[in-house]
Amino acid sequence: MQFHLNGFRPGDPELVEPAQVASRTCSGTSLPATVDVLIVGCGPAGLTLAAQLSAFPSIETRIVEQKTGPLELGQADGIACRTMEMFEAFGFAERVLKEAYWVNETVFWGPEEERTDTIVRRDRIQDTEDGLSEFPHVILNQARIHDFFLDVMRKSPTRLEPDYGRTLVDLKLDRRANPIHPVTATLERRTDEHECQIETVKARYVVGCDGARSAVRQLIGRQLVGDSANQAWGVMDVLAVTDFPDVRFKSLIRSAREGSLLIIPREGGYLARFYIELDKLNENERVANRNISSNMLVAAAQRILHPYSLDVKEIAWWSVYEIGQRLCDKFDDVPAAEVESRPPHVFIAGDACHTHSPKAGQGMNVSMRDSFNLGWKLAAVLEGRSPPKLLHTYSAERQRVARELIDFDRVWAQMMSARPAHEGNAGADAASNGFDPVEFQSYFEKHARFTAGTSIQYHPSEIVGPQTHQDLAKGLVIGMRFHSVRVIRLADAKPVQLGHTVKADGRWRLFAFANAEDTGDAESSIGKLCTFLEESPASPIRLYTPAHADIDAVIDVRAIFQQYHRNLSLERMPSSLFPGKGVYGLRDYEKIFCADHKSGEDIFEMRGIDRCTGCMIIVRPDQHIAHVLPLEAYDGLIAFFGGFMTPSL
Amino acid sequence: MQFHLNGFRPGDPELVEPAQVASRTCSGTSLPATVDVLIVGCGPAGLTLAAQLSAFPSIETRIVEQKTGPLELGQADGIACRTMEMFEAFGFAERVLKEAYWVNETVFWGPEEERTDTIVRRDRIQDTEDGLSEFPHVILNQARIHDFFLDVMRKSPTRLEPDYGRTLVDLKLDRRANPIHPVTATLERRTDEHECQIETVKARYVVGCDGARSAVRQLIGRQLVGDSANQAWGVMDVLAVTDFPDVRFKSLIRSAREGSLLIIPREGGYLARFYIELDKLNENERVANRNISSNMLVAAAQRILHPYSLDVKEIAWWSVYEIGQRLCDKFDDVPAAEVESRPPHVFIAGDACHTHSPKAGQGMNVSMRDSFNLGWKLAAVLEGRSPPKLLHTYSAERQRVARELIDFDRVWAQMMSARPAHEGNAGADAASNGFDPVEFQSYFEKHARFTAGTSIQYHPSEIVGPQTHQDLAKGLVIGMRFHSVRVIRLADAKPVQLGHTVKADGRWRLFAFANAEDTGDAESSIGKLCTFLEESPASPIRLYTPAHADIDAVIDVRAIFQQYHRNLSLERMPSSLFPGKGVYGLRDYEKIFCADHKSGEDIFEMRGIDRCTGCMIIVRPDQHIAHVLPLEAYDGLIAFFGGFMTPSL
Repeated sequence: MQFHLNGFRPGDPELVEPAQVASRTCSGTSLPATVDVLIVGCGPAGLTLAAQLSAFPSIETRIVEQKTGPLELGQADGIACRTMEMFEAFGFAERVLKEAYWVNETVFWGPEEERTDTIVRRDRIQDTEDGLSEFPHVILNQARIHDFFLDVMRKSPTRLEPDYGRTLVDLKLDRRANPIHPVTATLERRTDEHECQIETVKARYVVGCDGARSAVRQLIGRQLVGDSANQAWGVMDVLAVTDFPDVRFKSLIRSAREGSLLIIPREGGYLARFYIELDKLNENERVANRNISSNMLVAAAQRILHPYSLDVKEIAWWSVYEIGQRLCDKFDDVPAAEVESRPPHVFIAGDACHTHSPKAGQGMNVSMRDSFNLGWKLAAVLEGRSPPKLLHTYSAERQRVARELIDFDRVWAQMMSARPAHEGNAGADAASNGFDPVEFQSYFEKHARFTAGTSIQYHPSEIVGPQTHQDLAKGLVIGMRFHSVRVIRLADAKPVQLGHTVKADGRWRLFAFANAEDTGDAESSIGKLCTFLEESPASPIRLYTPAHADIDAVIDVRAIFQQYHRNLSLERMPSSLFPGKGVYGLRDYEKIFCADHKSGEDIFEMRGIDRCTGCMIIVRPDQHIAHVLPLEAYDGLIAFFGGFMTPSL
Repeated sequence: MQFHLNGFRPGDPELVEPAQVASRTCSGTSLPATVDVLIVGCGPAGLTLAAQLSAFPSIETRIVEQKTGPLELGQADGIACRTMEMFEAFGFAERVLKEAYWVNETVFWGPEEERTDTIVRRDRIQDTEDGLSEFPHVILNQARIHDFFLDVMRKSPTRLEPDYGRTLVDLKLDRRANPIHPVTATLERRTDEHECQIETVKARYVVGCDGARSAVRQLIGRQLVGDSANQAWGVMDVLAVTDFPDVRFKSLIRSAREGSLLIIPREGGYLARFYIELDKLNENERVANRNISSNMLVAAAQRILHPYSLDVKEIAWWSVYEIGQRLCDKFDDVPAAEVESRPPHVFIAGDACHTHSPKAGQGMNVSMRDSFNLGWKLAAVLEGRSPPKLLHTYSAERQRVARELIDFDRVWAQMMSARPAHEGNAGADAASNGFDPVEFQSYFEKHARFTAGTSIQYHPSEIVGPQTHQDLAKGLVIGMRFHSVRVIRLADAKPVQLGHTVKADGRWRLFAFANAEDTGDAESSIGKLCTFLEESPASPIRLYTPAHADIDAVIDVRAIFQQYHRNLSLERMPSSLFPGKGVYGLRDYEKIFCADHKSGEDIFEMRGIDRCTGCMIIVRPDQHIAHVLPLEAYDGLIAFFGGFMTPSL
């Protein structure tokens, strides 16, 4: 953490100085007449976006929610490794690590071969492969994730708070009548105090994070298209006493005749979530019409777990739902044919544009990453750093990801719902009845990276470079997230995760990996690169950084050396690698790193970085790798940033 | 973290259910007429004690402070590894890790041999030896430590808050007149609102954590005795620009003619603390009379750092002080001659009974550990689990520790203050002028464990067993703190630090380390021990656990096995190792652990535990090892707890 740059301030360093901004509302007061961004819906997608935008004092953001207060119970709980990496960028990963259940191993149970009314453990696997991420796969109540984002917002310079009890009833786009704030949103307050009060807000941008029945989606005329849902599932969070020995493991249990159960242990050591397979629904039937009670869910779980006992003491939350894999063809208001002619002004994110079976534990994770992708782009456009056409990349990138997920999810849900094909057949593993057990296991393992969220790759565009120089860093794949490794900070010898320097602050990172001989001297590749960045009129830093901003306000340059840290001297480094910043010109000493020689976890080795040449890695504000370039490719650097950035005035 | 035991509750799990207790005050209201414990002083010692006692709803605690609000600036900042371990027990180590500066290496600078007006780096050493603790040595503003303790108090069942603006003016002990609340404290409110308002509180116990000029100490007639202070030092927290390359390392700098400077980098990346050697004082002279200004400190630092520049932009806090090594002969109100005849009722802790040079960074650390030692003892006596004579062990244990520290500190301060003996002499290292450089370095390294707080050892007493069976666990030394190792939790395969199961909750731990063959069967050593503990009328658990309390409410039994965790079965373990607890009888699955075979950090190997026999390790509520016993030594176990515990009614 860095703080005290502009003077010492006592108290919590996460509670940053409030910005001098107009008309900040507290929840309960009226909405302003105009805003820059109106976010509809306080779920994971909405809160990720609100937390991201709350960091920008120049941007007026409001987030409205139909419910009258924050979520307290239920809904999603799976948090993938990649999502933890994103939480680290927002500054609360350590709180999740502390509270959450850690998914270390997954166990598979099925019918015993001789006595099929009895279940036995069939297999046990490590949940996340070694080295996939510096974070584990964890489970925590969605409500707590909301709390952490709300905390980020509360401590931000804009002190953003949601406006609860607002239902979106209309949305109109008229760029001609309102060129600056073209979207007019009409909201109705439905709390007791404000019954039927109508509010009208004009916004530059509206983002619908309002769930599977999204009003925003309907008002821009988009539809969720996909499978009809005919497999019903029950879900409940229980406090129970059982002699089932694996109740604190993620357990996939398939009985011979009573269906399937997925147990997800939960935070705190006692709570567990049970997903219970229910009967197939008929065409167009809704599970709500089945009159399923929580007692029925408990009874079903008891039958599946036989001969183990299950004594449910408390049901904290329960629900029933159908699995439906559905997707919008586009995540904004601009038809494909008009992409070249106008920028989007209305977006949808999360369940509003894609829904999945909860079996893969993906919904909340993908939703948050949707708006993490959108947030920095909105900020860049609203702050004048990029032209509005950048916003087209949101739908282009995230719709493709959602489609891949739906495809994965469909197969996964089928596997989970498939009936036992050959009871008592040695080949019919409980976890994969209807599928070959080897196939099931291999699918599970092959897709672990997908489930962890670490295999997502954005395709080449103006913000994702071509593969031309990918060989310079084989393990840092263009389009994929920057995969962190521990390094040693030169100025204080602290071991730190290099990836954790990428905070959710809308900035770009340029990681300059030095060649083997480079010690930062003026004539070295790093030295020359720094001179170019600092002095050349064509330097992206000179072009895009506002006149009075810190040198790293738009593009944050950091260097990583191969030598043992004691063999390098700060004195010989380019001064722009410990630049003066803030009102006092205090030096920032957290820009120079070395490979970790002591632990043997050498970032050059682990990420396949060319030791002879080094390279530049450009990382987007959402932690994805935008480009790999040779250290001398100044023209490539100029061209890349020139493709989507607007020179600062 | 464990929570939801007695039912699901939404929100922050650290904010525990408030207890149904009488007359909890908010700050600003009047003090109650009687309390169990009155703590005087809101420094590190007072707050550690208040945080500890706030966990006990049956104990009415108040903490008063002369100042009108919480500390915001200055004072101590060094946090030793051992203190971090204690913070983990209070549940906020991860917050300190996140905010603090990490002391990774220490550098030594001295005059260049040829040109003694120039300083050069002489040496560089790793600050903390590998494996000394699972926590680093860190630096963080004392005010933040206060904040974290205040948070613990606020979230505790008693919702304890300090009562500010109270000055202790009198203290009377009369056991005959007031057998239950024998101490009468008179306090004066000196805030604007309450000018000269007098309050009287009768207390069972009073603890003076009121600093070097302690009123409590004076009122019980004890004195700080020791060296006269004749070395003055200046200290300042600065935001500065410098070309001194090691400003982000802990740096000991000795100039040839301008004195010494110690730089301690601080949290946030920009702030640093400078300790500057000032002139020697005359006998009985006070540094306050020297009229030293902050400008004089800056000028002195600039001279010492020559030829490096120092441009101080802001001084967040500064002070001057004399070094005085002083100590009380006893830390309570009972004269040595009366120890056998009456228990103590008034205690002093922290600077009230020992003061040190800040050079060793020990003051705050030792103070907090004083009251961590006292807190659980007060709770045990007040809750009727131990007789009042247990309280004599506080002074006995902590006075000895303070004396060892003073001895260490005296030598250290002399080394720091010693004048260069032979300028230009090759043997006269800058960091150790006046001392042999080899001697200095070796003293520094030898005492690193002392400085880290990990070498403290309590001597045999009723709560520290004899060394008889120390051979069974050579690396877990009786009297020293339990040195944690990572283990694998059987029920969910989570890697956890075994030591982190020891929370600041007043409970004892019994770690049963199994022999190589033991898999927890009924006939194994672990099985038999569990049967004894659960069923024998002589079992300490049966004797000392109140009737309706959870089985682990007083003594928390946990077992550690040698096997790979997948080769053990929860089903075969004694059920008392996953006991039913709370209103629902939910099972606690966090009692059984295995050596970590994957990482190779095997706790049996690392702590020298006898693989053939296993052993029992008894750990006190303050994390110190009370005893090592063979697994079959039931009589030894009975005798040990019988020595200081009172059977439950």
